[in-house]
Amino acid sequence: MIYTCTLNPAVDYKFNLENVNIGKLNRVENANFFAGGKGINVSIVLKNLGTDSIATGFLGGFTGDFIKSTLKNRNIKYEFIDIELPSRFNVKIKHPHMETEINADGPHISNSKMSELLIFIQEMKKDDLLITGGSTCKGQPEAHGVIAQICHEHGIPFVMDTPGKYYSQFLKYKPFLVKPNIQELGDYYGTKITKVEQAIFYGKKLLEEGAERVIISMGKNGSIYLDQYYIYRSNLIHSKVTSSVGSGDSMVAGFISSYLSDKDTQKAYQFAVAVAQATTFHEGLATYETTMKYYYDVNVKEISK
Amino acid sequence: MIYTCTLNPAVDYKFNLENVNIGKLNRVENANFFAGGKGINVSIVLKNLGTDSIATGFLGGFTGDFIKSTLKNRNIKYEFIDIELPSRFNVKIKHPHMETEINADGPHISNSKMSELLIFIQEMKKDDLLITGGSTCKGQPEAHGVIAQICHEHGIPFVMDTPGKYYSQFLKYKPFLVKPNIQELGDYYGTKITKVEQAIFYGKKLLEEGAERVIISMGKNGSIYLDQYYIYRSNLIHSKVTSSVGSGDSMVAGFISSYLSDKDTQKAYQFAVAVAQATTFHEGLATYETTMKYYYDVNVKEISK
Repeated sequence: MIYTCTLNPAVDYKFNLENVNIGKLNRVENANFFAGGKGINVSIVLKNLGTDSIATGFLGGFTGDFIKSTLKNRNIKYEFIDIELPSRFNVKIKHPHMETEINADGPHISNSKMSELLIFIQEMKKDDLLITGGSTCKGQPEAHGVIAQICHEHGIPFVMDTPGKYYSQFLKYKPFLVKPNIQELGDYYGTKITKVEQAIFYGKKLLEEGAERVIISMGKNGSIYLDQYYIYRSNLIHSKVTSSVGSGDSMVAGFISSYLSDKDTQKAYQFAVAVAQATTFHEGLATYETTMKYYYDVNVKEISK
Repeated sequence: MIYTCTLNPAVDYKFNLENVNIGKLNRVENANFFAGGKGINVSIVLKNLGTDSIATGFLGGFTGDFIKSTLKNRNIKYEFIDIELPSRFNVKIKHPHMETEINADGPHISNSKMSELLIFIQEMKKDDLLITGGSTCKGQPEAHGVIAQICHEHGIPFVMDTPGKYYSQFLKYKPFLVKPNIQELGDYYGTKITKVEQAIFYGKKLLEEGAERVIISMGKNGSIYLDQYYIYRSNLIHSKVTSSVGSGDSMVAGFISSYLSDKDTQKAYQFAVAVAQATTFHEGLATYETTMKYYYDVNVKEISK
């Protein structure tokens, strides 16, 4: 079974507004709520692609209930650690040419609640796989490292998709896959990456430090896949970007979903790129139908090591 | 029994932020959720003053569940009409010297849901009292008038505390009490009211049009009470305003709570002013303890008719 873990899930409150009139009363119509957070997005995309997963992490309060009901409505299983304080709530305002985000820090997680999650993870099996990432939760700055260590010790393959600052916590525990974007990769190595050659150079470094597979997303420049045998490159199909929110999570879901069924790396990477594009070029997260619009046009080139 | 009715309840999401950086990611700490809406505020203040009430209106979704759990935690009874869409969600941002509000319009209420509420109201008794007001809900522009008519026909005393534009819908049905502020009173009569004499003039007009009792709140200028026998005036005690949110609702709760137990108009008005001040000068809504800090200093003067 695939498990996804979200340490600090969120309800995203989204609406359109020409401008925010500071100090005034602003009225909005058609505001909507969405369940958000990296692991939850991955679980949703996996389900859309026909792959089951169990979502875990911490959930609390009425915002946590909303996230549970969203998963339930999509027939996604979950086993969250219940906390007392409400889960995080983010406000996302879409203006004509930009977006304003107001993100809260989310509830504090006690050591005993963290232990409950770690015990749950320990009980996973060697043929399970854990996909986790995002920022950590308040009170648990080392959570990514501890989770990675436990997975490593128990032989549970895990995918970590986090901001660069967390990489030093978990690379040594040999993640099955990491998926930095070039900004995150640069953050980790204290540099600014602009060229594909640089991305490959630092991607190889991630492999040396412990990652088994690396996908580096580069926005308009497409992406790169690296493992100890292969380097692949794929360009982005040029199309109008609707929203890039969740495209990284879609890439992870796409790779895992395809790889676990076929064990074919190149095919899984091609599928991952198509899923990410389906999320980027359409409203909402990728579905199997939108993914297949892109799959056969995705061009994956092998690059010699 | 006192009933309070909120047609469009809200969850208020409140936090401090120096400034909103438009087009950027803003991070907030210590954001909090509150149950809001006129009738709900009145029920909370009534409970704080030791008076029971039953809250009704429309509630739905996870935001509705939050409001229910807030009432439950405060031992306030409720009998809401359940709707499918989530109840309204408002964002309230407190800057150093001002407040930005982003208010959503709330869910659409069907005629059949409105009928359910009206049947519930019809079953109230002559010795009950209904306190309702605020804006109406989407899809039911005439709700205040219809509720007033039903109360009138069934002999149920009712308090209406609404923006001025609704007054023409319900004055003829003889509300037990209306509580406009001078802005709302001016809106109804298509004029701008700045002086106490004008407020008295238009307050008398409200009595002529059907209101049995009128309280006009005038911000820093205090307030006025009018009925067919008396006119009272009370000045505001000068103190630092913490938040005026809910002070009108507190005034209504204070008047009703005292009047129903003593039937003493002047005492009820004096108490109402103290309750409003307790809300204005302290964090959160008035309690009995904060109210009693002001009660004996409230100066109520009779004005000859």
